[in-house]
Formats: sequence, C-alpha cells, structure tokens
Amino acid sequence: MQITVMEDILGKNDQMARELNQLFTSKGIFTLNLMGSPGAGKTMLLEKTLWQLKDKLRLAVIEGDLFTSKDADRIACCKVPVIQINTSGGCHLDAYMIKSVLPQLDLDELDLLIIENVGNLVCPAEFQLGEDRKVLVLSITEGEDKPLKYPLMFRQSSFIILNKIDLLPYTQFDMAAVKADIFGINPDARLAEASCRTAEGLQPWYDWIKEQVALKKQAIGS
Amino acid sequence: MQITVMEDILGKNDQMARELNQLFTSKGIFTLNLMGSPGAGKTMLLEKTLWQLKDKLRLAVIEGDLFTSKDADRIACCKVPVIQINTSGGCHLDAYMIKSVLPQLDLDELDLLIIENVGNLVCPAEFQLGEDRKVLVLSITEGEDKPLKYPLMFRQSSFIILNKIDLLPYTQFDMAAVKADIFGINPDARLAEASCRTAEGLQPWYDWIKEQVALKKQAIGS
Repeated sequence: MQITVMEDILGKNDQMARELNQLFTSKGIFTLNLMGSPGAGKTMLLEKTLWQLKDKLRLAVIEGDLFTSKDADRIACCKVPVIQINTSGGCHLDAYMIKSVLPQLDLDELDLLIIENVGNLVCPAEFQLGEDRKVLVLSITEGEDKPLKYPLMFRQSSFIILNKIDLLPYTQFDMAAVKADIFGINPDARLAEASCRTAEGLQPWYDWIKEQVALKKQAIGS
Repeated sequence: MQITVMEDILGKNDQMARELNQLFTSKGIFTLNLMGSPGAGKTMLLEKTLWQLKDKLRLAVIEGDLFTSKDADRIACCKVPVIQINTSGGCHLDAYMIKSVLPQLDLDELDLLIIENVGNLVCPAEFQLGEDRKVLVLSITEGEDKPLKYPLMFRQSSFIILNKIDLLPYTQFDMAAVKADIFGINPDARLAEASCRTAEGLQPWYDWIKEQVALKKQAIGS
C-alpha cells in the first residue's frame, strides 16, 4: 500500500517536472538542482558561484529548507533574486513546490536558475524538480564511503564537488578511493576538488556552468 | 491524501514502537536510537563505545544502511553481535524493520541495544523504533546552523555529541552559538564535545550509558 502510493506520488511529480523543464527550456533557462548532506557546503558553493557569475549571467536562486530562511538570507547578500521554500519539516523539494513559487520570478529575464535542495543525501534524489542537471556537494569530512552507501545521488549527478579540501591534511580521507568509487557508479561524472571557503579549485565548476548555459541557448537557437 | 497516508503510517509505526519498547523493558534492555547526518561519525562513535563497554555490558547492535554492510562489517570487528538492515534506498529505519530482525537476537542475554539509523538529519526523527532514548551525533564540520535548521532531531535527542573537535582549530565553527541554540531547543539535552577518532571527550557519554542501563535495571527491579 505504502509502495503503491509512493509510486503514484513519484509518477505525478515526474510529470510535473517534465512540464517545468519544458517551460524552462522554452525560455532558454538552464536549471540546476543542488544537493548534498547537511553541512556539505551547498550554500557556500552558491555564494561563491553567484559572486563569480552574477555579472555574466542573469541568475536566480530557489532555496529549500525545513523551517528557516538562513540560507536565503545568505544568498540575498549576493544581490541575486532568491525565493525561499520552507518544507515544514519535509525532507526534500518536489516539482509542485517549484511550480508554486515560479510566479515570483521573471522567467523572461533569466539565464540560470539554481535550486538548493534540503540537506539530505537520500530523499532528494528521487524527486525531479524540472532541472537540466543535478549537482552534488560531498565534503571530504563526511568520509570516503559515501558514494557506495548513497549511490543513487552519485549516479544521477552530472557534476560532483569534493568540498573542504582545505581540511584534507587533518583527515584520513582517501581521495583516490572516493574517485574510483564515484567513477565506478557514474563514469560520466565531472569532478572538482575544491574548498568553497577559500574558492580554491572552483574554476572548472564555473567554466562548466557557463558552457552548459551556452549549450542550452544554442539548443533552442536563441 | 499524501498527508492522511503519512499520518496512518506514522500512527501504526508508533504503535509497533510502543510494543517493542514494552518488550525491551520486560527484558531489562536499554535501547538507543543513534542518528545523524551522513558522515557525522555515528559508526566511529559506536566502535569506540563498544570497545569501551563490551566487557562491562552485554551489547548488541542493529545497523541501518541503504544498501551496503560497510558499517556492520566495521562493528563486527568489535566482536559484538551485529545485525544489518538494508532499507533498499529507504531514508530511515522503522519499528517494523526492527521487529523483523529481533529473532536473530537473544533478548534474555542483553543489557544494551544500540540501533544505528540511516545517515539523515531529517526523516529518522519521525519514526520511533522502540528505543528508550535518541542520541544525535553532529560533526562540527557541518556548521553551527544545524540545530535551528533541523530542530526536530535536536529536540528529541537526550544526548548530543558534538563530534570532530580535533578539526575545530581549522574551521570557523562557533561552539558557544551551537550550544545556545541546542539548549534553546532542548534545555534538558546532555552534551559532549568529543572526537570519536581520538576518543577525546567521550567519558561523559560512556558514563551516561552506564547510568541509563543501571536506571533501567532498577526500574524493572532486576
């Protein structure tokens, strides 16, 4: 019974996500779904990314959080439009939540929409949000066993940022092992070893975004 | 519709959890539900705790994980009975899963049962497992905003371990702020600042467990 209901919920969500993706595509908007554990560094990645790209691209952010607007407040400091979604304890965003806040955005004036999901390495992987690509932040302080323990999210993510490498000398994290496990699960994943605090190692990530936005514009011939 | 089903699922789970707790209590077994984000250090805490207590108490462990037996394999090295539950991608354990594996344990020969939940700071808080107490591991590398962002788990946990303090000098973690937020949410919480890697700061945790096991035995007059 629980399983049937769940399949129904996921099916409806997938349908809504397809509609959203068609809408974003018709407007030439490239959309990212940013995921990771609590404290992996998603919001700090977003802060660095917005400062880097906001003069080059027209950006907006949707922030998912259980109850607070702490992340949205941080993003608002970057002077980029940001919309808060509170899930009231819910463990992931879904496509219906995204649809409900779209009237607050001017989709005709947007190149890139980044959606920061709830901090959770499990549930967000199952709910499409209409995004073009999923992005995962794994902090090296979480340990190198995570790709095999949470394979779905690693499999789905086009770009994976191995964050907090400034702490690498103080941990026993095995970078070679985690890379081997990630490529075993997802041979096409793009990886960056980075510190979102110092911004070290983030250039390939910025370049990838710009490339993806350009490809999206090209695909729709705009 | 989704909400009604969810309330029904939670209600049935609560009922099963009450039955399990009665069973554990009738056997004089003190039971812990160990929770935290992926990579917070739950399994390392467990390893240190088992080595410390296995000659003083009769112990067993139930390990929750999405797909692998990586954590159970680590615990098995401690020469303590360990049972693996794989949730096949599910984001939390529930009371029915616990019930299903109990035939593998000799409940008449047990003082302490520790259940390590799936790495997730959201969903496990909603599903009782029949435990006496919840325990939360927060690693300081996750950042000090976590209590306010994930309040339910902090509110429910009787003991909270602030882990990875060996990395404190290399982070900007505000220990005073996190403590103030935790006590604001949960004034009765017991806290330990610890490093599960070095075992520094874990003595209050070991003492608390021994005290709780003794209280449980006392309560049932055994």
